[in-house]
Amino acid sequence: MTSDHHFHCFPNRRDFLKLGAALATGISSLTVFSEPAVSQDNEMWIVGPKPGFSPEIGTLVSMLAFTRMQVLHNVQGMSVADLDFLLDAKANTIGALLNHLAATEAYYQANTFDGFAWDKFPDALKQKWDVPMNLGEPARKAIKGHNLDYYLNLLNEGREKTHAELKKRDDKWLATVNEASGMNNYAGWFHVAEHESNHDGQIKFLKSRLPGAKPANE
Amino acid sequence: MTSDHHFHCFPNRRDFLKLGAALATGISSLTVFSEPAVSQDNEMWIVGPKPGFSPEIGTLVSMLAFTRMQVLHNVQGMSVADLDFLLDAKANTIGALLNHLAATEAYYQANTFDGFAWDKFPDALKQKWDVPMNLGEPARKAIKGHNLDYYLNLLNEGREKTHAELKKRDDKWLATVNEASGMNNYAGWFHVAEHESNHDGQIKFLKSRLPGAKPANE
Repeated sequence: MTSDHHFHCFPNRRDFLKLGAALATGISSLTVFSEPAVSQDNEMWIVGPKPGFSPEIGTLVSMLAFTRMQVLHNVQGMSVADLDFLLDAKANTIGALLNHLAATEAYYQANTFDGFAWDKFPDALKQKWDVPMNLGEPARKAIKGHNLDYYLNLLNEGREKTHAELKKRDDKWLATVNEASGMNNYAGWFHVAEHESNHDGQIKFLKSRLPGAKPANE
Repeated sequence: MTSDHHFHCFPNRRDFLKLGAALATGISSLTVFSEPAVSQDNEMWIVGPKPGFSPEIGTLVSMLAFTRMQVLHNVQGMSVADLDFLLDAKANTIGALLNHLAATEAYYQANTFDGFAWDKFPDALKQKWDVPMNLGEPARKAIKGHNLDYYLNLLNEGREKTHAELKKRDDKWLATVNEASGMNNYAGWFHVAEHESNHDGQIKFLKSRLPGAKPANE
């Protein structure tokens, strides 16, 4: 085992740092991948409190950034054809999975910030997010033809709203248990973070099987 | 969107609770899946401090349990043939992925608890874990023929050691930055948690393609 394997399931650290800088400065998705590294970069490797958030919420925000960064790294430079690639009849496209991540964030916002029960979301929200949330055949039919920026903008807009809402809340809110689900808000938002990693595993799997892809071990 | 979709990428909550109970009581992997639910169940839906650990470490422990539970749920009842199923020439088997999760935990233990640099692990450790850690062709050749219990025992033994070591440490240790990697211990162990979810996404993908599998949306 060499030091190259240290972050065996991480992207190259240099790329990571560039991404981190871009995310930290909040620039648009169009330029995310060409920004130089800045001093804030190293923050991406720290899980802990962040300025502007209560201590536990800042820790959560650093986790959300950690798994998001891996997704963004893995889809970097993808074409519409890559995003629409369907491995087999059961598979989801990478584009649909990215849309699914944005849908998940939107529904957790509606549930934990706006207080909507999971079976009582407003129609406008359902119209926008039900198809990517539920994936499967309807998503295979409906979600296609978009470029990477389309998906990155959905993800960035969602995350900006999440940050804005989390800034208004405190650690007591984070520990609050939702009576209907039995989960506390920390578990719900931790799920949003690890859920990105879950589908990132699938994105990597699909990516390594794109036409012309190089071999990958994971 | 119905309430069934609430935990769209979670297992059925009832199964979850049974698993949670089994994990909470620390029984062996052989009996994990047949235990009835107990009152500790609901703890599995809470991310936060846990008795016996410092507050932040307890929160981390609840996250490690959260993603582990999903993996255990998804591999429940798998046969040797399921665990050795190879989707294509580039794929990893589900057995190899489980072994990989145990290897990851072992190396993060060696690095963060025992202070070994990533390129200076003891030979005995490398002999045991390098193949599952690195996956790919060597793992496809070497890791096969084991039943589910073999892998669950590796996972359980690793987690027990992690818990024992974490009990000796405090929140200050968790925030400590490793000079070589630039990561703090919280980021390293958060990675161990979200990494299980990452490969769990692949396990679900492979599982839905086992011979005779039912259709799955994710």
